[in-house]
Amino acid sequence: MAEINPAFVLQSIKNVSFENREVPKLRDEYDVRVHIEQTGICGSDVHYWQRGRIGDFILNSPIVLGHESAGTVVEVGSKVKNIGVGDRVAIEPGVPCRHCGYCRSGSYNLCPDTIFAATPPWDGTLQKYYVVAGDYCYHIPNHMSAEDGALVEPVAVAVQICKVADVRAGQTVLVFGCGPIGALCQAVAKAYGALKVIGVDISKSRAEFAKTFGADGIFIPEKPLDSNVDPVDASRATAETIVEQFHLGEGADVVLECTGAAPCIQAGIFAAKKGGTYVQAGMGQENVMFPITTACIRALNIKGSIRYTTGCYPQAVELVASGKVNPRSLITHRYKFEESLKAFEVVKTASEDTLKVMIAGVQ
Amino acid sequence: MAEINPAFVLQSIKNVSFENREVPKLRDEYDVRVHIEQTGICGSDVHYWQRGRIGDFILNSPIVLGHESAGTVVEVGSKVKNIGVGDRVAIEPGVPCRHCGYCRSGSYNLCPDTIFAATPPWDGTLQKYYVVAGDYCYHIPNHMSAEDGALVEPVAVAVQICKVADVRAGQTVLVFGCGPIGALCQAVAKAYGALKVIGVDISKSRAEFAKTFGADGIFIPEKPLDSNVDPVDASRATAETIVEQFHLGEGADVVLECTGAAPCIQAGIFAAKKGGTYVQAGMGQENVMFPITTACIRALNIKGSIRYTTGCYPQAVELVASGKVNPRSLITHRYKFEESLKAFEVVKTASEDTLKVMIAGVQ
Amino acid sequence: MAEINPAFVLQSIKNVSFENREVPKLRDEYDVRVHIEQTGICGSDVHYWQRGRIGDFILNSPIVLGHESAGTVVEVGSKVKNIGVGDRVAIEPGVPCRHCGYCRSGSYNLCPDTIFAATPPWDGTLQKYYVVAGDYCYHIPNHMSAEDGALVEPVAVAVQICKVADVRAGQTVLVFGCGPIGALCQAVAKAYGALKVIGVDISKSRAEFAKTFGADGIFIPEKPLDSNVDPVDASRATAETIVEQFHLGEGADVVLECTGAAPCIQAGIFAAKKGGTYVQAGMGQENVMFPITTACIRALNIKGSIRYTTGCYPQAVELVASGKVNPRSLITHRYKFEESLKAFEVVKTASEDTLKVMIAGVQ
Amino acid sequence: MAEINPAFVLQSIKNVSFENREVPKLRDEYDVRVHIEQTGICGSDVHYWQRGRIGDFILNSPIVLGHESAGTVVEVGSKVKNIGVGDRVAIEPGVPCRHCGYCRSGSYNLCPDTIFAATPPWDGTLQKYYVVAGDYCYHIPNHMSAEDGALVEPVAVAVQICKVADVRAGQTVLVFGCGPIGALCQAVAKAYGALKVIGVDISKSRAEFAKTFGADGIFIPEKPLDSNVDPVDASRATAETIVEQFHLGEGADVVLECTGAAPCIQAGIFAAKKGGTYVQAGMGQENVMFPITTACIRALNIKGSIRYTTGCYPQAVELVASGKVNPRSLITHRYKFEESLKAFEVVKTASEDTLKVMIAGVQ
Repeated sequence: MAEINPAFVLQSIKNVSFENREVPKLRDEYDVRVHIEQTGICGSDVHYWQRGRIGDFILNSPIVLGHESAGTVVEVGSKVKNIGVGDRVAIEPGVPCRHCGYCRSGSYNLCPDTIFAATPPWDGTLQKYYVVAGDYCYHIPNHMSAEDGALVEPVAVAVQICKVADVRAGQTVLVFGCGPIGALCQAVAKAYGALKVIGVDISKSRAEFAKTFGADGIFIPEKPLDSNVDPVDASRATAETIVEQFHLGEGADVVLECTGAAPCIQAGIFAAKKGGTYVQAGMGQENVMFPITTACIRALNIKGSIRYTTGCYPQAVELVASGKVNPRSLITHRYKFEESLKAFEVVKTASEDTLKVMIAGVQ
Repeated sequence: MAEINPAFVLQSIKNVSFENREVPKLRDEYDVRVHIEQTGICGSDVHYWQRGRIGDFILNSPIVLGHESAGTVVEVGSKVKNIGVGDRVAIEPGVPCRHCGYCRSGSYNLCPDTIFAATPPWDGTLQKYYVVAGDYCYHIPNHMSAEDGALVEPVAVAVQICKVADVRAGQTVLVFGCGPIGALCQAVAKAYGALKVIGVDISKSRAEFAKTFGADGIFIPEKPLDSNVDPVDASRATAETIVEQFHLGEGADVVLECTGAAPCIQAGIFAAKKGGTYVQAGMGQENVMFPITTACIRALNIKGSIRYTTGCYPQAVELVASGKVNPRSLITHRYKFEESLKAFEVVKTASEDTLKVMIAGVQ
Repeated sequence: MAEINPAFVLQSIKNVSFENREVPKLRDEYDVRVHIEQTGICGSDVHYWQRGRIGDFILNSPIVLGHESAGTVVEVGSKVKNIGVGDRVAIEPGVPCRHCGYCRSGSYNLCPDTIFAATPPWDGTLQKYYVVAGDYCYHIPNHMSAEDGALVEPVAVAVQICKVADVRAGQTVLVFGCGPIGALCQAVAKAYGALKVIGVDISKSRAEFAKTFGADGIFIPEKPLDSNVDPVDASRATAETIVEQFHLGEGADVVLECTGAAPCIQAGIFAAKKGGTYVQAGMGQENVMFPITTACIRALNIKGSIRYTTGCYPQAVELVASGKVNPRSLITHRYKFEESLKAFEVVKTASEDTLKVMIAGVQ
Repeated sequence: MAEINPAFVLQSIKNVSFENREVPKLRDEYDVRVHIEQTGICGSDVHYWQRGRIGDFILNSPIVLGHESAGTVVEVGSKVKNIGVGDRVAIEPGVPCRHCGYCRSGSYNLCPDTIFAATPPWDGTLQKYYVVAGDYCYHIPNHMSAEDGALVEPVAVAVQICKVADVRAGQTVLVFGCGPIGALCQAVAKAYGALKVIGVDISKSRAEFAKTFGADGIFIPEKPLDSNVDPVDASRATAETIVEQFHLGEGADVVLECTGAAPCIQAGIFAAKKGGTYVQAGMGQENVMFPITTACIRALNIKGSIRYTTGCYPQAVELVASGKVNPRSLITHRYKFEESLKAFEVVKTASEDTLKVMIAGVQ
């Protein structure tokens, strides 16, 4: 009897179901097959479920959901060098084409032909077995749990953001957002030797959590009461308050924007010191009112961060393995594979108290 | 009888007059006194004349106007090493404090205590004699005229923009604006070995000039006719047209924005390739609608450029001396010192046909 | 009747012969087959012929020689996007593994599993047909000859050296060696906007050629007559002479060492300005006496350059296509395929008057 | 009665004496006068005492010794902004000219006109009062002792070395030398988030100390017994042993050479991974046999580090203030000002057990 491969499938918008799919086969000698043990749920998974698209990626046919996973290798192709059967691994969910100019120059996060788990038309990891290139699997040590392994994904996102920002020892770092990515950025910045890391969030509970996780200080903005104030002026005032309250001198050396919200983007620019660095990592509205003249006069370095590049996953594994970053404390909900729909409902609700939701794999 | 020092003085908003001032004295052993021979007029000079302020710099007492100048050294302090009496020099108009963190780390363009010519409360160069630090004067060779020497200033601005953008041989460079700074950026980018330089301007005559000056190609956007189109969408369409028309592949390697106009800023972001660089050099509105999600997803590097840093002036002198950049062809009007007001009127009118206006010094 | 594929094969040390080999097949859907039209001979080809090894690469079985080639594509795999049948292409001779950390981070020149033409155990291009990955072939325009196309290889080597050195507009560049690589470095540095490029060679004829090719000035060192002088002191004296003679101030901004000879290496370090850059590209003795304290005190940046990275080939094609670099004038000898042995003999002799030797392909 | 200013003066080679000098006066409005409280002794102080020169700096007239000092500000010039009378400060001992190209571009460590304490012809800090530019004094918090403040100097040297090396979180760092600078480099690298730091020293006691200070592992090389082995080959073998023993894979990401000894320099090059970074910070012989071909083939980045640049002192103060680096445990000997000669004798003897020798100031 053929082995079964249960999968949690997004059939069409708002329509998910469980299927027994065929066990996926290695596509070439560089592939491996992983028995998935834990998967974290991310906002983008829910976005495809509810809306069927993100940017140019449109759901036209069913896909398996899930992309933050760890498991155990059960089959390896003949040319795989880095791992073997029985190894426990964290899986980097996007495998690029390896042939385009971006791939060849080390910017594989920009490759347009990446096969990314749970991004249409590609299947994700919420199935018993997942096939992926061996070099995009990273061995995790015994003392790391499968949950830790799955959480390497958001840690790797934070590592890429800090690498793009070129966070250095001794710097002051202001992070907008205290959800999983914001909080992890704060912890990674501390592991990089940052002098002072400040987290900002409108949710008191998220901000309070960040204080226990990586931030040296937190700021909870109040909504502007005076509706006559220009929104950009209000953001500038917020920035000035933060700079003053946390003794950031002429401004933060580095600003990491992990919300995508216009007031945070604006305040982030105003809170950066002259010659400082601002990284846009959060995504919200397509266009926002932006203090471009301030960016010019202050000679800011403004950069976008997207996905991960070489070295992010190994470094994320090490940060978790060494205990410098402890993503497990982000987990607020745990579900069995059969409860996947419940897990997605919780993420969809997006309560302040929900940080990371995990789904255990099929045994 | 004491030597006279005629000066063209901005007394208060819209109120200029000629004065006979005292010959300025060296302030310390590092200073030199220069007999000014040519001065170019810049938009900022006119801005102070008409409005009395730019940003935080406010006219509270009279200042001598002018800051793009060259002349002959007539007196040198005892510690000046680089130049001597009789040397013909281009003058860098801003001398920083040399003691703050910006100065000490090489970012003297960000020094808040810079003494900048014709920026309140500091006097400018439209006088017979100007005193400045010797190391901010740069020897020009005999075959360069005083006009060439004065025009080193806008060339140095363009050099700084290209340095901030890290323009490299073989790159495609898209420049918004074909006024003096835009056109000079195009010429400097070519001197840096850029493969293809495209200039954009809504003025046909400026764009046509740019074609003869440094640009490999020019683009003259039409005003969007359909008022129902969202302005940012219109800018995106303009960007796509430019990319297609000039075979820029996935977008320009480098975008230099020298206008400060919202449609150019937006089109510039959309026209940059993934991982590309965009430099904001033009200043217009404080805030603009900005395609921040595109900047994020494309992992753009967005930087502000302001003034000049070490090496800009020497390189600008060399570009002019070698003939690689020929700023003299930017000159459209020439006036005597006594006609300074006329010169300012011409710049104020800002006709399409006005590029650079020069004022000869007092003999 | 099967098509034939004549090849020039190194059977064992000093033992070459012509063979009719099978027409090579595409190995996967990313490969193409190229009909070779021109091949340049390089010192390393001769080295394998005469000594059977370079470093860890040892001739244990026959290999086809040749690795600087251009030709016409005659077959393409189904996943090749960048070129098609009938396209004329320059071939980058090393295709890396695409899976190791070096490949994934953009440093594919360091990949230990690169398949490099004519490097044991891999066959080279001196055969009628050569199979290679499509993305390592670069389209050349019609006005470039096949000879130009083959010469893209040494131009790409020079481009990589100048990229490693980060040669910038306005810099002074001192190049040790006026053979093909040295002369091409000089020309590429000029195309990058270098202010002053000085070539050094003990061969008067090579130096004189360099003067006509890319160098602004040349220096022909004399052998030290006084055998009592310490060799490193002699090199220091040579460096001081060069710096003085060519008005390099405190030293050259950039030194490119393309000979591998101890006196050049030493003089190069002494001739670099404080904070300047020195690139080691030539290979000679394994170890040399090296002025390490000077390197330390002057805070030099010393880098090794090896092979090419992403962007070198496209830029080299453009430099040739645009006429900025004209490698054809390096050609001193031309042979037919059947005369390959003669061509190799000429390179082996290494007369001062031999620069580049070309072998036409089988029709 | 005029205040006295006792000083410890190097009159000529091997000839020191105490003097009562005049209290030094501020030279301009940017200067401050500091009452010196603690001074650490460094090898260079002893070198001038015993030999009268280092490189081009030659003792031609008496100088006060000492340059690693902290104290309390007792007088400030009118333009000093960063500190006031009564502030406790660490003193950066070299004040550059502020006018040359190195100073203006942020590389003030390369300024040839630096006034460096206890470097001929400039007086040092082993006197009651020392006058220095205010911006080269750095406020230290109350919980830092004057000893801590004096030790900021070697910490700043280590910070500069790690900055030159661009040490990053997650890297492996191999440090040759476990004396004060080597040990501090190890501690600073850890503070930067380095994954694994290995210290190398032939002194067992120094290496053992390093293990307790910053190193994750130490290596004590044995002298090669077989005199037939080529010294460079022996160094290569040492490097291979280190790489294997500490699981450094293809080699260390970063090598910091703090000894200046030929075997360490050679082993350092062989122990660096391809594309890795090697920093020369130690100074010994002028010239050494150097594996230049390995440096070339591995595309290494080799850099010299000298003194400090902007930001080193503030960061060093913070590393000490935060407890991340604890230089006090380097102190092995403490002397009163009147015992200065004894202190110098101890450093001259250079026993294995001597790390840092401190001299208290005149009250």
